[in-house]
Amino acid sequence: MIIILNSEITDAQLDALIVHVEQAGMQTHLSKGTFRTIVGLIGDESNVSGDQLRTFPGVEDVVPVLPPYKLASLEAHPQPSIIDIGGVAVGGSNLAMIAGPCSVETEERMHSIARSIKAAGANILRGGAYKPRTSPYSFQGLGPEGLEFLRDAGREVGLPTVTEITDVRNIEITAEHADILQVGARNMQNFVLLRELGRVKNPILLKRGMSATIEDLLMSAEYVLSQGNPDVILCERGIKGFDTITRNVYDVSAVPVVKTLSHLPIIVDPSHATGKPDLIPPCAYAGIAAGADGVHIEVHDCPQEAKSDGPQALLPEQYAEVMNQMRAVASVFNKEISEPTGVEA
Amino acid sequence: MIIILNSEITDAQLDALIVHVEQAGMQTHLSKGTFRTIVGLIGDESNVSGDQLRTFPGVEDVVPVLPPYKLASLEAHPQPSIIDIGGVAVGGSNLAMIAGPCSVETEERMHSIARSIKAAGANILRGGAYKPRTSPYSFQGLGPEGLEFLRDAGREVGLPTVTEITDVRNIEITAEHADILQVGARNMQNFVLLRELGRVKNPILLKRGMSATIEDLLMSAEYVLSQGNPDVILCERGIKGFDTITRNVYDVSAVPVVKTLSHLPIIVDPSHATGKPDLIPPCAYAGIAAGADGVHIEVHDCPQEAKSDGPQALLPEQYAEVMNQMRAVASVFNKEISEPTGVEA
Amino acid sequence: MIIILNSEITDAQLDALIVHVEQAGMQTHLSKGTFRTIVGLIGDESNVSGDQLRTFPGVEDVVPVLPPYKLASLEAHPQPSIIDIGGVAVGGSNLAMIAGPCSVETEERMHSIARSIKAAGANILRGGAYKPRTSPYSFQGLGPEGLEFLRDAGREVGLPTVTEITDVRNIEITAEHADILQVGARNMQNFVLLRELGRVKNPILLKRGMSATIEDLLMSAEYVLSQGNPDVILCERGIKGFDTITRNVYDVSAVPVVKTLSHLPIIVDPSHATGKPDLIPPCAYAGIAAGADGVHIEVHDCPQEAKSDGPQALLPEQYAEVMNQMRAVASVFNKEISEPTGVEA
Amino acid sequence: MIIILNSEITDAQLDALIVHVEQAGMQTHLSKGTFRTIVGLIGDESNVSGDQLRTFPGVEDVVPVLPPYKLASLEAHPQPSIIDIGGVAVGGSNLAMIAGPCSVETEERMHSIARSIKAAGANILRGGAYKPRTSPYSFQGLGPEGLEFLRDAGREVGLPTVTEITDVRNIEITAEHADILQVGARNMQNFVLLRELGRVKNPILLKRGMSATIEDLLMSAEYVLSQGNPDVILCERGIKGFDTITRNVYDVSAVPVVKTLSHLPIIVDPSHATGKPDLIPPCAYAGIAAGADGVHIEVHDCPQEAKSDGPQALLPEQYAEVMNQMRAVASVFNKEISEPTGVEA
Repeated sequence: MIIILNSEITDAQLDALIVHVEQAGMQTHLSKGTFRTIVGLIGDESNVSGDQLRTFPGVEDVVPVLPPYKLASLEAHPQPSIIDIGGVAVGGSNLAMIAGPCSVETEERMHSIARSIKAAGANILRGGAYKPRTSPYSFQGLGPEGLEFLRDAGREVGLPTVTEITDVRNIEITAEHADILQVGARNMQNFVLLRELGRVKNPILLKRGMSATIEDLLMSAEYVLSQGNPDVILCERGIKGFDTITRNVYDVSAVPVVKTLSHLPIIVDPSHATGKPDLIPPCAYAGIAAGADGVHIEVHDCPQEAKSDGPQALLPEQYAEVMNQMRAVASVFNKEISEPTGVEA
Repeated sequence: MIIILNSEITDAQLDALIVHVEQAGMQTHLSKGTFRTIVGLIGDESNVSGDQLRTFPGVEDVVPVLPPYKLASLEAHPQPSIIDIGGVAVGGSNLAMIAGPCSVETEERMHSIARSIKAAGANILRGGAYKPRTSPYSFQGLGPEGLEFLRDAGREVGLPTVTEITDVRNIEITAEHADILQVGARNMQNFVLLRELGRVKNPILLKRGMSATIEDLLMSAEYVLSQGNPDVILCERGIKGFDTITRNVYDVSAVPVVKTLSHLPIIVDPSHATGKPDLIPPCAYAGIAAGADGVHIEVHDCPQEAKSDGPQALLPEQYAEVMNQMRAVASVFNKEISEPTGVEA
Repeated sequence: MIIILNSEITDAQLDALIVHVEQAGMQTHLSKGTFRTIVGLIGDESNVSGDQLRTFPGVEDVVPVLPPYKLASLEAHPQPSIIDIGGVAVGGSNLAMIAGPCSVETEERMHSIARSIKAAGANILRGGAYKPRTSPYSFQGLGPEGLEFLRDAGREVGLPTVTEITDVRNIEITAEHADILQVGARNMQNFVLLRELGRVKNPILLKRGMSATIEDLLMSAEYVLSQGNPDVILCERGIKGFDTITRNVYDVSAVPVVKTLSHLPIIVDPSHATGKPDLIPPCAYAGIAAGADGVHIEVHDCPQEAKSDGPQALLPEQYAEVMNQMRAVASVFNKEISEPTGVEA
Repeated sequence: MIIILNSEITDAQLDALIVHVEQAGMQTHLSKGTFRTIVGLIGDESNVSGDQLRTFPGVEDVVPVLPPYKLASLEAHPQPSIIDIGGVAVGGSNLAMIAGPCSVETEERMHSIARSIKAAGANILRGGAYKPRTSPYSFQGLGPEGLEFLRDAGREVGLPTVTEITDVRNIEITAEHADILQVGARNMQNFVLLRELGRVKNPILLKRGMSATIEDLLMSAEYVLSQGNPDVILCERGIKGFDTITRNVYDVSAVPVVKTLSHLPIIVDPSHATGKPDLIPPCAYAGIAAGADGVHIEVHDCPQEAKSDGPQALLPEQYAEVMNQMRAVASVFNKEISEPTGVEA
């Protein structure tokens, strides 16, 4: 950590600052410049808070040198993590291809969509049973019944499953029914939920909040990791922007940025990022080309009847075409899309 | 709702669309333009979803005419709501002046700050017992003990209290100890929490999310209102922006915008919006001048020792000065700052 | 300037870096931390570029300690600048009240609006002769004839004038006709224009670009100042945001932020910031309460006939009411609104 | 255009509105809903302005149905435009690979970089002679001498050239020396410059402004097209965002969005979008995968000595590697990278 002093700091103020830092077990190193003096802190920074240092009179700014996340950092874990989901490796040379409807709607439809996305080559099945909706008057999901339909559909086609968790009180039942627990963008900083998810065995799919920086995202991952759950998959799904022509801004550079900072795998979700079916294929290809460890796409066999997010769903036949092209792009980067090997029927 | 058709829609597609709308109980009104045809929908829009309509072939766009919130709208409740907090009116001609430390830290400090902000003229006491922190390694609040310190401090000085709620499992204990339950910016779209808060008797202080539009904010209020709790106070606390010179962008225009759309009171929080003590006073005055129903300011007697957000706290003596000036600005707009009348000692 | 080295830097790389800095005439000061080494640079920073330092192998980050603007900084000029516009002081205890139509449309209308805003108490008259319009098919302004109408209307009512300059080739004629030359938000980083405006005698009204940081704004002011023109008035007019309910986000905190960094006066423009007449009054009051040195408001006597920006214009009678309230807010802060004393008829 | 009336409009107000519209030569079509009445306008919209309609009492909102750009629209020109640059086709199945230094620095270096990027497979050479710099104290470019060095280097290696134009007074000399004239992001809404560029013969490379919507970008292209120059190449180069970890947000979805609205080719510039060399390759691949018609990358043989933007430059050998991978990605989409055929030595 570096403390930049303002030009009017008094000797007494500087002394008070140094005493504070040294009492926290760190050494200080002064560097007097022509216009400003800076203080370098040497030692274990965990006992001193930049926020507190900023409150000392005479302090102009405090510049962190180390990232605030530790377990999520590449320094702590220099090899990229590979997370196994029922025989599907997420990370490394394999791509997670997650597909399925936004909401689980009926048992029949869930099975039918599962069969079509499996046939197209997807290796993880998604479906929402608890839906976070902007309006209290919108469909809020089938709840426990939805979890059953999803689990059964996954078993039928031999695909592991992912579903969203929105309530700490539903963690147990959801963890029993689905393989991966997803934290949605609006809950990315629901720290109560994150902490509890650090204590389950299931991997967590953590979606980036709409106004979260990459550091915010990694700090939220750190919440999960710090409680003992090492399996966090990050997901770029679009950030808030000023142009309403797309639902969000698809920040594809988040993929290589994360790769330079963290060992955690990161996938992309062009469905939520763009909100428009004709933009999903090119953005999916872009995600793979940028180095993503997988692609999440919503698929529905009749968008006109979808209870949520119909306008952004691909039809099964469209998904199959996109999958072929995704496979071609992946091969340029020596990535493959494997079938799951570990799902019990 | 208005449906804009694209120029290549076929007669069969148009017929299917009209059948769908009419089956939902609405009438349609076609208006064929030179380049585009538009369809006006007449009747109760609650049975038809813009999202679904967008999925029909030949539909270019769907334009809502009515706002999606109902109970929060000015049309449903043309008079501004005035919410009573232990004898302090929030809304109307009275201003809610909320002050106190970011976190409840010790019993002694909580009482001491309470006395100073009461002396300065504040009429509601704040203090956090459950702290949502970006880092899992930061101080997370005292929990139940913090709630007791806050309640006791409020009783001692005769001020109602507000504290943040982050976990549905803590609603009962928090509702027993504090007058107002605050939903923080990061939980503004934690719909599970909002729905439960719609079932408590305490008023809710709902802070705007960092990337929430005004409509998003009103939709989140609608969650609370729709469950039977009519007492929601909105709070502008800064939105995400591109300039790091302030912590957030203080969107003071949110105040008059809300006034044109909703009957709910709205206060401002210049502490979180700016993150810098020297910006808090001018932004507080600006909030009152823009028509806010109150001002939320963090006060700490020793920011160097604060366990959270020290750099943005005002000292008690600074707060007293700012209060004097706020009172002067308020008087220009015929607003007053009353003392609470209903807090039992 | 502080250089943060990454943990893998070699001795040879460090030596190359130090040689480079010392050849630029600066001294270095090493501070070896537990995880990172930092290098403080001591001396005149103007010969070394942060951008260049970032390209050296082993450099993780470069942190500037001093602001990149000099003439615009408070350090260079600790007293707030007061700029005289035909007897109207901009800065200090006097407020510049700029009003008039978006575009100069006809001679008669220009005079009529001038009379009404003068009667209401405005002390500077505005009107656009060269209009930067998003569409090439929109009204682009009357050009030289518009300049004459504006000058004559200003003389008739005894008000100095301000008009926008968009083309370096029009500087001479515009500088002859108007007192203040305005640089619009879209040209805030038109450095060619700024440099030429640094060589005229007229004060410059520099509007903040829609995605300009405060530092960007001050750097653009620096362009003008560096060429010899000391008279730059800054203007906050709304920045780009994600909520389309207002035209822009009115960043009222820009006012106190600028006051902590620069001696230049700063006014606010709630007309362009909000784009809606009912939001202009509260945002104007907020601007004064935040410490602005003036308020710019568009006024038109028949918005239905306005050739540009009609929807955001106040009627003359509305402006007169707002002026009364602005005067009341100003008096709380010991500010006054003086009449011009130096405009020849 | 659709006018949405508010619920309190009077008959007299509605009549006035209808008379206004019909006098502009359009027909109206009323659709009375349960809560709101809407008015559809039929006929040529060019005589009526949404801005004016919004000023009528009783009007709540005006919704455009047609885009405001015409010549740039896909409706006006359903086939994608292919622009020839000295034998390099921009658009269609060929990719424009633009490379070179940020600034032209010395004759020798310009030639040396030109040779290396030509060897790597680039087909257009870039180099800035007039540099728009945030600071007036930074290197501003070599001017006319830089134009000569660029032209000569292009001729030596047989590549057409592109350089930035910032001043209307330099159009003639720049148009004589370079093949493509580039408008930088900060000048995207310098309408004076755009209009003049509509009258030259050279194709224009129009970079998206940092806070420009896609519609804004197409409107700026419309300025050029409307003056008779049909050759505009768009460029996505990053938009303003809230995360400082990258220089800008690389909005790769702009590529497919433009393809759904316009016939103009669009390339990407990952150098400016990300500002970091290690992010450039993945973002370049992503751009091609998203359908871009070319990639613009800055290359410098000694970033430590670069006079501008050194930190984001690739070394020639890095560029050569990236080019190989770009070629592989392009082949998946049946795109090729041809050599120029029409540059005279």
